[in-house]
Amino acid sequence: MRILFIGDVYGAPGRKMIDEYVPKLKQHYKPAVTIINGENAASGRGITEKIYKGFLSAGAQAVTLGNHAWDNKGIFEFIDHAKTLVRPANFPAGTPGAGYTLVKINQLEVAVVNLMGRTFMQPTDCPFKKADEIIEEVSKRTPFIFVDFHAEATSEKQAMGWYLDGRVTAVVGTHTHVQTADNRVLPKGTAFMCDVGMTGPYDGVLGVDKEAVLYKFLTSMPVRFEVAEGREQLSGVVIDADPKTGLATSIERILINEDHPFYQ
Amino acid sequence: MRILFIGDVYGAPGRKMIDEYVPKLKQHYKPAVTIINGENAASGRGITEKIYKGFLSAGAQAVTLGNHAWDNKGIFEFIDHAKTLVRPANFPAGTPGAGYTLVKINQLEVAVVNLMGRTFMQPTDCPFKKADEIIEEVSKRTPFIFVDFHAEATSEKQAMGWYLDGRVTAVVGTHTHVQTADNRVLPKGTAFMCDVGMTGPYDGVLGVDKEAVLYKFLTSMPVRFEVAEGREQLSGVVIDADPKTGLATSIERILINEDHPFYQ
Amino acid sequence: MRILFIGDVYGAPGRKMIDEYVPKLKQHYKPAVTIINGENAASGRGITEKIYKGFLSAGAQAVTLGNHAWDNKGIFEFIDHAKTLVRPANFPAGTPGAGYTLVKINQLEVAVVNLMGRTFMQPTDCPFKKADEIIEEVSKRTPFIFVDFHAEATSEKQAMGWYLDGRVTAVVGTHTHVQTADNRVLPKGTAFMCDVGMTGPYDGVLGVDKEAVLYKFLTSMPVRFEVAEGREQLSGVVIDADPKTGLATSIERILINEDHPFYQ
Amino acid sequence: MRILFIGDVYGAPGRKMIDEYVPKLKQHYKPAVTIINGENAASGRGITEKIYKGFLSAGAQAVTLGNHAWDNKGIFEFIDHAKTLVRPANFPAGTPGAGYTLVKINQLEVAVVNLMGRTFMQPTDCPFKKADEIIEEVSKRTPFIFVDFHAEATSEKQAMGWYLDGRVTAVVGTHTHVQTADNRVLPKGTAFMCDVGMTGPYDGVLGVDKEAVLYKFLTSMPVRFEVAEGREQLSGVVIDADPKTGLATSIERILINEDHPFYQ
Ligand SMILES: [Fe+2]
Ligand SMILES: [Fe+2]
Ligand SMILES: [Fe+2]
Ligand SMILES: [Fe+2]
Ligand SMILES: [Fe+2]
Ligand SMILES: [Fe+2]
Ligand SMILES: [Fe+2]
Ligand SMILES: [Fe+2]
Repeated sequence: MRILFIGDVYGAPGRKMIDEYVPKLKQHYKPAVTIINGENAASGRGITEKIYKGFLSAGAQAVTLGNHAWDNKGIFEFIDHAKTLVRPANFPAGTPGAGYTLVKINQLEVAVVNLMGRTFMQPTDCPFKKADEIIEEVSKRTPFIFVDFHAEATSEKQAMGWYLDGRVTAVVGTHTHVQTADNRVLPKGTAFMCDVGMTGPYDGVLGVDKEAVLYKFLTSMPVRFEVAEGREQLSGVVIDADPKTGLATSIERILINEDHPFYQ
Repeated sequence: MRILFIGDVYGAPGRKMIDEYVPKLKQHYKPAVTIINGENAASGRGITEKIYKGFLSAGAQAVTLGNHAWDNKGIFEFIDHAKTLVRPANFPAGTPGAGYTLVKINQLEVAVVNLMGRTFMQPTDCPFKKADEIIEEVSKRTPFIFVDFHAEATSEKQAMGWYLDGRVTAVVGTHTHVQTADNRVLPKGTAFMCDVGMTGPYDGVLGVDKEAVLYKFLTSMPVRFEVAEGREQLSGVVIDADPKTGLATSIERILINEDHPFYQ
Repeated sequence: MRILFIGDVYGAPGRKMIDEYVPKLKQHYKPAVTIINGENAASGRGITEKIYKGFLSAGAQAVTLGNHAWDNKGIFEFIDHAKTLVRPANFPAGTPGAGYTLVKINQLEVAVVNLMGRTFMQPTDCPFKKADEIIEEVSKRTPFIFVDFHAEATSEKQAMGWYLDGRVTAVVGTHTHVQTADNRVLPKGTAFMCDVGMTGPYDGVLGVDKEAVLYKFLTSMPVRFEVAEGREQLSGVVIDADPKTGLATSIERILINEDHPFYQ
Repeated sequence: MRILFIGDVYGAPGRKMIDEYVPKLKQHYKPAVTIINGENAASGRGITEKIYKGFLSAGAQAVTLGNHAWDNKGIFEFIDHAKTLVRPANFPAGTPGAGYTLVKINQLEVAVVNLMGRTFMQPTDCPFKKADEIIEEVSKRTPFIFVDFHAEATSEKQAMGWYLDGRVTAVVGTHTHVQTADNRVLPKGTAFMCDVGMTGPYDGVLGVDKEAVLYKFLTSMPVRFEVAEGREQLSGVVIDADPKTGLATSIERILINEDHPFYQ
C-alpha cells in the first residue's frame, strides 16, 4: 500500500507543479492514494473550491490544510460538502469541516488525518489527545492511517512521531515549508519526517517574494507579501505500508527543482 | 577551500560521535577548516572548557554556540581566552566573548561568524545589521566567510541566506536539531541550508529522552530533561569554496546514523 | 455575601503581609469567604503544604494557583488531599488536584474556580469551554461562583469577563502582578477586573530583585532571580454579591503599601 | 511643570472623548503640556494626518504611537513633516519619523519620548539602550523628559521604570489598554505606572467589538474586528514635576466613564 503526499502547495507556482508533476509522479510511483496539503494553494492564503477540485482532477484523493485553513473565506461555503478535504482535527469542537476522512481504494480504506501543533502557534486543543481519539475510532476500520502534522517546532513533531509510533502508518510534518532530511521508519513501524517541505516558488522565502520579506525583517515596516515569481519546486514523500499491518516499510523523500530535476 | 561543519553537538552521545567520526570525516573530506556547533555539548546545556578543548583535539579549528551559550556558567571563566570559540555576534554590546573569529590555515584565513535569529526566540540585536557590520570588517581580510545562523524560523533563515547571497561563502542554520534537505548554492554563490541538524542521540526528541518530552507535552507537568540514551547520529555539511572569490561551488549534507552508516 | 480575595502572594515578603493584614482585613471587611492566590508563595515558585496551611490559619478558606502551580515539587504530595487548594481547571485531563472547590459557609457554598489563559502562555485546554463545564456543574448547587482567571493578556481577560457576565459572581484576573484600575460590575452582574495585583515586595520587578531583572533585560545573560528585599505591598479585592442571585453588587480594590497605608 | 497624558485613543469613540474632555481636562488641570497616544486613533489601526491635526487642535502638543504606528499607510506621507508626532525610538535605524520630540512651552522644553517593549512583541532594538542614548542627548537641553513606554509585559515596564528612575520625569506605559493602579513616584523621583489605559469604547475588548473577540477566542475562526459601539471611556494621567530638577512630585490617574464621571 503506497501513499504519495505533496507538501504545502503555495499559490499559482505550486498549482502549476501539481498539474505538471502529480500525473508523472503517479505514473512513476503508482501510489494507491495521493494526498496534497493545500493550505496555501490560493495565493498563499487558504484554498478555493475550484483549486480543491483541481487537486482531485490532478489525481489526489484527499487534501489536508493547516493554520491557513480559513484564510480564503470562500471555504465555509464548500468545506462541509468536500468529503476529502480535512482541516486540523484539533480545532475547537464545532468547527466546520472534518479533521479526518476515509479514502476508499478498491477494498481498502486509508484514513487521512490533519493535526496542528501548538508550540509557537495559536492556541488550540491538544493534538496528542485528539490523535488518540481519532486512532481509537479509525483503527476499527483500517490499519492505514496517514497523519499530516502541521506544526512549527521540531520538538513537537518528533514527540508526535514517537507518540504514534506503531499506531499509525505515517506521521509527516508540514508548515515550515522546508523539507527535512530525517525521513525514517521509527522502531515500531511508523514512517516519520519533520517536514515534507513546500510546493511552489523555489527562490522566495517560504513562497513569498524575498525582497518583501527582507524589507520586513530589516525595517519592521508594512509590506505586501506577494507570491514569489521565477523557478518552482515540488516537495513530497512516498510511503510504503505493509498491506496487513498498515505499518510502514519505507519513506522516501521527493524534491523536484532546477537543482534536482525529476527523471522518470 | 573546503569547510566541514558539524551541527549542534548534544551531550555525551554527541561528543562520542565527534571523537569517532571527525577524524574519519577529515580523512575522507580533507577540509581546510573544521567547525563544530557546541551549544549543547555539556549535557545538552552549554559547553565547558574541557569539551571545547576536546573539540580542538578532535580536529576542529573553531566552535560556534547559540541560545544555550550561557547554560553552563563555567563558560565565563574561559570564553574571553578561547580564541576560536564564538557566541552569537548579535548578543548585546558588552557581552563576553566574540561573535566571530578568524581561523588561519597556511596563508589563508576563514572568518567564522555566529548569529542568532529573533523569530520565536529571545529578543536580541538585529542579526541582519550585525551581519553587515561583520562582513564590512572581515571582507577586507578574507573572502572566506562562514556564517552559522542559529535560528528557529525557516523564514528568518531563508531571508538571511538571500540577504548574504554573494557576500559570504556560506549561511548554514543550526538550532532546530533536524537536518533540512534544502542544501543549495544560491544564485550569487552563497552555500545555504536551513539547518545542519544535531549530533547526538538518534532516538530522542532533539537530544532529550523522549519519554520525558512526551510527558511534558501530554501533561504540562514538570519533568527533568535528560540526555536520551541509545543510538547516536551525526549531522554535518561540507562546503567547497572557490579559492579566489570565496564563493561556494557546492554544499553537501552529511548524516550518519544506523539508517545511514558512514562508508569511508 | 462578601468575598475577599488576595492576589499572587510572592515569597516571604508576601506571606508576611498575609499574616499581618488578612486578620485586619477580615476584621474590617467581614468577608464571608477569604481566598488567596498562592502560586508564588514559596520563594516566588509554587507553594508548600506548610504555606498552604499557614494561609488557612491566617484566615483564608481557599487558595488558588496558576502557571507556577508545580514549581515546588512537594505539591504533588499534598494537593490531592488539600480540599480547598485549586489549580487551573483547564490543565489537561488527568492532572493532579482539582480546578475548583466548594467552600461551605454556614448554609451557603461558594465555588472557587481557577482558570488559566493561553495568550502568551503555555498551551492548555480552552479556558472558555472549561468555564462552561464548571458553571454547568456548579450552578446547580450555588449561585456564588468566584473565578480567578490567571492570564497574561488583557484581551483574553476582558473576553472572559464578558463571556461569563451574568453567569458568575466574579471574574478577577491574576498573574501580571500589577493591580489594574478597571474594577467594575459588568452590565449583567459579574464583578470584573483584569488583575488584582501582587502581594509581596513593593520595590522589585513582579517580586524579583530589580537589579537581577535589569541585568537580564540589558545583557540577556544568566542571573539568579531572588525575591526582592525591602518594603512590601498587598493587593486584593472585595466583592459583594446579592445573597439570592449570587450576582455582584460591588467590587472594590485594596492596595496596601507605604504610599497607600491601610487605615482600619 | 504639569504634564497631561492620554492613553491609546481607539477609533471614533476615542476621538469623541478627546474632543469632549481634553478641553475640560486642560481647564481643570492646567497642564503645561498635553500628550496623546494615538496609535489606534484611526478605526483602531494607526493614525491619519487629519486625526493628528485634530489632536493638536483639541489641545495636545505631542502625539505618541506604538506597535500600530504603521497600520494606516497614509502616515508615511506626513510623519516626516509632523514635528510633534513620535513613533517608537527603538524602531530600526532608518525608520521614517522620529523617536522623540522637544515641545517648547514658553521658556521651557519637554522631551516626549516613545519606546516600545520586546517581550511578547515583535523584535526591535533594545529599548533600554535606546533610552540611554536619548537621555544623553536630551538631558543637555532639558530636565523634563516624558517617556511613553509602549509594551505588553509588566516585567519589562517595571524594569524600565527602575532603569530610568531619577533620570527622567516620567515613565508611563501604554499598549495593554487597561489602566493600572500602580501609579507612584519611584524613590529617585521618576513618576511611573505600568499602563495609562485606553480612550475609546467602554464595553468592548481593548476597543474591539466584544462579540467578535469572543468568537475568535472560542472558535479560532476568522472574524472582522470592528470598533465597539456604545459607551466610552477616557484614560489618562497627570504628572507634576519639579521646575528645577524635572523630577516628579506626583502622578495621578484619570479615568472617565459612566461608572466614574468627570466632575469639573
Ligand atoms: Fe503552509
Ligand atoms: Fe502552515
Ligand atoms: Fe542546539
Ligand atoms: Fe539552540
Ligand atoms: Fe504570579
Ligand atoms: Fe502566574
Ligand atoms: Fe493601543
Ligand atoms: Fe499597542
